[in-house]
Formats: sequence, C-alpha cells, structure tokens
Amino acid sequence: MKDMTDLDAFEVGFDIPAKPGMSEAEIQTPCLVLDLDALERNIRKMGDYAKAHGMRHRTHGKMHKSVDVQKLQQELGGACGVCCQKVSEAEVFARGGIRDILVSNQVRDAAKIDRLARLPKLGARTIVCVDDLANVADLSAAARKHATQIECLVEIDCGAGRCGVTTTPEVVEIAKAIEAADGLKFAGIQAYQGAMQHLESYEERKAKIDVAVAMVKDAVDTLKAEGMACDIVGGGGTGSYYFESNSGVYNELQCGSYAFMDADYGRIHDKDGKRIDQGEWENAFFILTSVMSHAKPDRAVVDAGLKAQSVDSGLPVVYGRDDIEYIKCSDEHGVVLDPKNVLKINEKLKLVPGHCDPTANVHDWYVGLRNGKVECLWPVSARGRAY
Amino acid sequence: MKDMTDLDAFEVGFDIPAKPGMSEAEIQTPCLVLDLDALERNIRKMGDYAKAHGMRHRTHGKMHKSVDVQKLQQELGGACGVCCQKVSEAEVFARGGIRDILVSNQVRDAAKIDRLARLPKLGARTIVCVDDLANVADLSAAARKHATQIECLVEIDCGAGRCGVTTTPEVVEIAKAIEAADGLKFAGIQAYQGAMQHLESYEERKAKIDVAVAMVKDAVDTLKAEGMACDIVGGGGTGSYYFESNSGVYNELQCGSYAFMDADYGRIHDKDGKRIDQGEWENAFFILTSVMSHAKPDRAVVDAGLKAQSVDSGLPVVYGRDDIEYIKCSDEHGVVLDPKNVLKINEKLKLVPGHCDPTANVHDWYVGLRNGKVECLWPVSARGRAY
Repeated sequence: MKDMTDLDAFEVGFDIPAKPGMSEAEIQTPCLVLDLDALERNIRKMGDYAKAHGMRHRTHGKMHKSVDVQKLQQELGGACGVCCQKVSEAEVFARGGIRDILVSNQVRDAAKIDRLARLPKLGARTIVCVDDLANVADLSAAARKHATQIECLVEIDCGAGRCGVTTTPEVVEIAKAIEAADGLKFAGIQAYQGAMQHLESYEERKAKIDVAVAMVKDAVDTLKAEGMACDIVGGGGTGSYYFESNSGVYNELQCGSYAFMDADYGRIHDKDGKRIDQGEWENAFFILTSVMSHAKPDRAVVDAGLKAQSVDSGLPVVYGRDDIEYIKCSDEHGVVLDPKNVLKINEKLKLVPGHCDPTANVHDWYVGLRNGKVECLWPVSARGRAY
Repeated sequence: MKDMTDLDAFEVGFDIPAKPGMSEAEIQTPCLVLDLDALERNIRKMGDYAKAHGMRHRTHGKMHKSVDVQKLQQELGGACGVCCQKVSEAEVFARGGIRDILVSNQVRDAAKIDRLARLPKLGARTIVCVDDLANVADLSAAARKHATQIECLVEIDCGAGRCGVTTTPEVVEIAKAIEAADGLKFAGIQAYQGAMQHLESYEERKAKIDVAVAMVKDAVDTLKAEGMACDIVGGGGTGSYYFESNSGVYNELQCGSYAFMDADYGRIHDKDGKRIDQGEWENAFFILTSVMSHAKPDRAVVDAGLKAQSVDSGLPVVYGRDDIEYIKCSDEHGVVLDPKNVLKINEKLKLVPGHCDPTANVHDWYVGLRNGKVECLWPVSARGRAY
C-alpha cells in the first residue's frame, strides 16, 4: 500500500493501478491483469502454427488495443502486422511503430478517409476494406491529395451478415475499379466469418467455413482469370484458424482472442470435443477484483461491475474457484455467491471476462504479472479510439 | 469536414469528435451527444420537484462522470453536491470544484482509504458509506493520519442485495462506533433500493419502497432514541424519487438517470401507466452513429457497436424512427434493419442506449448540441475512474 501512496500519481490527477515490482496483493482494483507467461505461450503457439502452415498472421489489434501486445505478437509470434477496425486505432499503432496496418473495415466518412490517406506518412503500409464502388472514388481522391497509396481489399460477407458483398461479380467489379483508381492498389480479399467463431461444435463451425471458403475460392479464381492476383486473402479467427489455414485459398490469419482468451471463447470445443481453454489456449487475461463488502454471510460484493467489463457475452467466471460464483452485476458491483462464507474483505479474485475485446476497451492499463509480481504496466494504447 | 482536418488534433495523437460551431453532420462518430435543451429541462424539472418537496438533491455523478454536467445540476437544479461510487471519481469531482461529495459505496482497500482521507484537502466535504465495524477503525486511522474528517453514513441494504446491513441493531452498532471514532462523524443513513428502479409497474416499485421506508424509519427512529440524529437519510433514484420524497423519512435524493434517460429506464411506467420517457423525462443523451455499409439492400451497418455502449440492459433504440431497427451488435458494428432501403451511406442516426451509465463510461467526450449546432465539448471527466 505504501507503494501506491508513495507514488501519489492520483494527487496530480493521474491514476494507475500498480507499479512494477509490486506484489499482486497491492494492485489497485478493479483492473486488467495479464499473466505474461501464459500470454507469451499463447503468442508463440499461434506463431508456430501459422509458420508451420505457411500462413502469415496479421494479429487483430482491435482485441487488445495495445502497441505493447502487438509488438510481442510480432517479436515472439512472427506476426506480419496488425489489423484493426478504426482509423483512429490505426493511427495509434502507426505512431507506436507498427509498419503494416490493415483497417479491416469500411471507411466512409470524409474526415476519416482523409486521416486514412495520411497514415502512410506515419510510416505504415495502409490497407483498407471496400464493399461499395462509390467508396473507391473517395479513397482515390484522398490518396491523390496526400500523394500516398492506399491498398484495398474487397470485403466478402461470407456469413457474418455485416459489411461485404456477397457475389463474385460484385467482387470483380470493385476490384477492377480499385485497379483503375489513382492512388489505390488492389491487394486482395477480406473474408472474415465472424458469426461462426463462437459456435460450440467444431463440426458446425467447419460447415460454416466450408461455405465461406467456396465463396472466397470462386472470387479468387475469377479474379485470377481476369489477371488480378490477390496478395492478401485474409480472415480466420480463434474459432476457425485451422480451417482457413488448410483451405488452400486463404494466406493470412487475423486471430485476436487466442492471445488473451475469455469465458465465451473458452466454452467452444476443439475437434476432440474439448473446451479450447482446456489445452488449446490459456487464460492470460483477467479482471482483478477485490471483495469490498460481505455484510450477508452467503454473498460477497466485489468491486468489478459493468464499468469494469462488458457482459454482452455473459457474466465473468471466477478463475480457479469452484466454491464461489459471480452471479450478478451492476454498475460498480459484482455479487459473488459464497455459500461457505470463505471470502475475506480485500481478498482478490481473478475474473475471466465473458468477452475480452470490449472489456479491454473500458480500461486504461494492463498490469503484467509474472511469478506474483508486477513486471510491467502497459497502456491500453487505443482504448476508446472509436473514430 | 474541413473543420476536422483543419484541426488535425489527431495528428498529434489527440482525438476529439467535434468542435464548437460545427453542424451535426460534421461530427465524428460514434460519439455521445447531449441535447442541451432537453438536458436543461430535465435538470430544472427535478430541481423544482426536490425544492417543492423539501428534499435536498445530491445528483449521482457515477451516471455522467462529468464535472460540467454536475455543475449544471448544481446551478440549474439546485443540487447540494454529488454522489459517486469510487474514490477516484470523487477526486475528479473535488478537483473540478465540487465541494460536497458522497462516495455512496464501501471503501476497504488501504490505499483507497488513504486517498479518501485526503479528499478534504482538495476542499470537499467527504462522506462515505460503512456496512462493517472493521471498516470504522481503518477510516478513523486514515482521517487521523491526515488530520481530516470523514463523515460516515451507515448503509442499509433495503432490497438491492448488494452492500449494506439488514437490521436496525447492526445500524446502531456501527453508528455508535463511528460516533466514538476520532476523525469520523456519524452523518446518517444510506438506503438506496437499486433493484426496484427498473420494475415496469409503478405499484410494484411502490411495494418495494414501502418495505425500504419501513426499514429506514425503524433505524432512524431507533438512532434518534439513542441520541443520534441523521443529517442525511439518502436514497432514491429515477424510478422511485417520488416515494422517498413523500416518505417522511428520507431527506436527500440521489437521482442520476433522469438527466439523460435511457431505453431501459424509458420503458418503466409512471403512476398513470405511461412510459416515463413519454412526458416525465426527455431523452437528452444519444450515441450518434453513421451508416458505413449498405451492401445488402435490407440492412445497413452502422459504426456503433459494443465498444460504443453497454448492452447489459438491451440493445439501443433508434431515436425518432419507426421505419428502421437496430437488431444486432458486434464489437464495432451495429446492424440496422432497413426494410425499405431508405438509409444512405454516412447518414447519421441517434441511438438511445439501453443503459446510460456504463455507456457514458466508454467515451471520452460529450458533444453538446443546440439547434443542430455543436455548442460545447465536455470531457467525460471521470471516465474509467474505477479505483
């Protein structure tokens, strides 16, 4: 405790949850903690997998929003670059030294397109997705204005039901327009099947990806016949990367959650019917929370509620504890069922959040832990970068 | 658009959604917008109500986390001060010039208690809640260490099922310990019935509050008989303030959501069976979002997903539009059903979020609108202040 009051960061209005060297007990909660050993093992494992399968891995930065995590993914996991969802995120990664950036999303607003076209000036290869002919002219005008190049992927909606075109003729039409536009370069296909990643059964997920692969293969083959090669055929997530890797069509993976894991992803099954958080990936990402009230013997109140996480994919799970259960959540409180009245005031619990991406986005810091000590404090560099 | 690229705030890594003077069409999305006229009307209305009923109104700052909104509530609504849920929030309000602050929550961690005890040095009357005898000694030691005074309310759990004691003897025991402790002052009772606020029926809510009022009255009467007066008997929310105001026991309200409104609160009924967002309170708080893809004719994709809001209390509602519906949400996307294909790329929609408090907490700025123009840009001053 002395450490935190010594620092007095808060006295000048700056608020951090921990300092390197602290013990876990001293960390200020609620906050995000990373098990650095587990994180590094996850990153190495996926990197090795991609390499062994001849795939590039463009790790998804929208999950962690952290320049530090991204650099670890490049150093330990051989990631070729980052993908993210917003121009403002891309700026943070570019400023942080990431040199190959895909905005795996549509950019339509004029001010945002202008910002996108200036990204190469920060030293980053800049790639974006397109699903509409009208966008091509806007992107081209901005690239010409700033004398930069924007590479464009045509986005295929292969089942996610969000952005993207759904037929090969549309793909070809947009690809040709990109090829013809000054300042733009046709770079390939974006085809991420987001909707199937969380289906529990391996077979169900495979069936969905088979459909996606067929769509993408048809587009890639047709483009080839028209003389247009795809440098990037990208997609794949934590629930599907083995399918894309073995498809013979995709050449870039875009996995994010594998590095951190969360409760919702953890529940899906591998090909042997085993939960993927029971062997395939380790939980490396937690909300650290403290017991703050235990006025009723059978339930404790902890300090992590809705403002410390997103519960869109369910409540968090208390890590490594079968004797207690997080059962209710309000803005600043979590209610933990404690039938044997074992929890003590200020006792810390690790919560595996339901959904890692939007949970990371409500915090300012990652506290990196190794052997029970704080090793590093990393900013959630692109937190709140929504534009 | 020129305005945003002129500003180039993002070129130095600073990101804002708008500048005063801009038109609504130029605002960068997704972001929070406030209808300043509606906000001011809500604030004045609740202020007038409290005054007419002889109640103080300590507006709940955990909802908006904004020094600017709080000051408006004090200036236009006569609010006596703020309540908030975290010490780090309280510091932000104290630094922002708010002089009467209740942390309507338990503070148990040693470093946080130390910070709490230093709040009076920032010029703020400092009040906190207690539900455990063991906490009294810790608070007293910190107040003595810093030669400050912490006022303490005993928290009663009158139905919310979170923090707080449940019997009058416990209340009296803790109150006496507070009275006896150096550096502390017994200031009354905290009794917020959070669980009933969102029950749709007025009668159901009333039944829950009748129970709460009986518990609180018993505690207040018993304390009085023991010679302990309650300066504050606080509670009440947007779904119940009329009950507490007419209880003859409570003297302070702690409403938050009335000022902004949200979709979940909007659905509850007043005593005439009318939704409270159809007359009692106006929607003043929106997520502004833009259409970014419309590759399928019957559905558009907008740029506000899970990272622009909390969906714990349901999906957002498109304001003032019956012809379209927000039906699905992923990290950065919202899918809007558009059966008549009326939406255009870059068209802006106002979303009424399901739950205002955790939605405000994911954004850095409020864009204040009046007559279609940006009038102000207010920081979400205590965003992410979770400690």
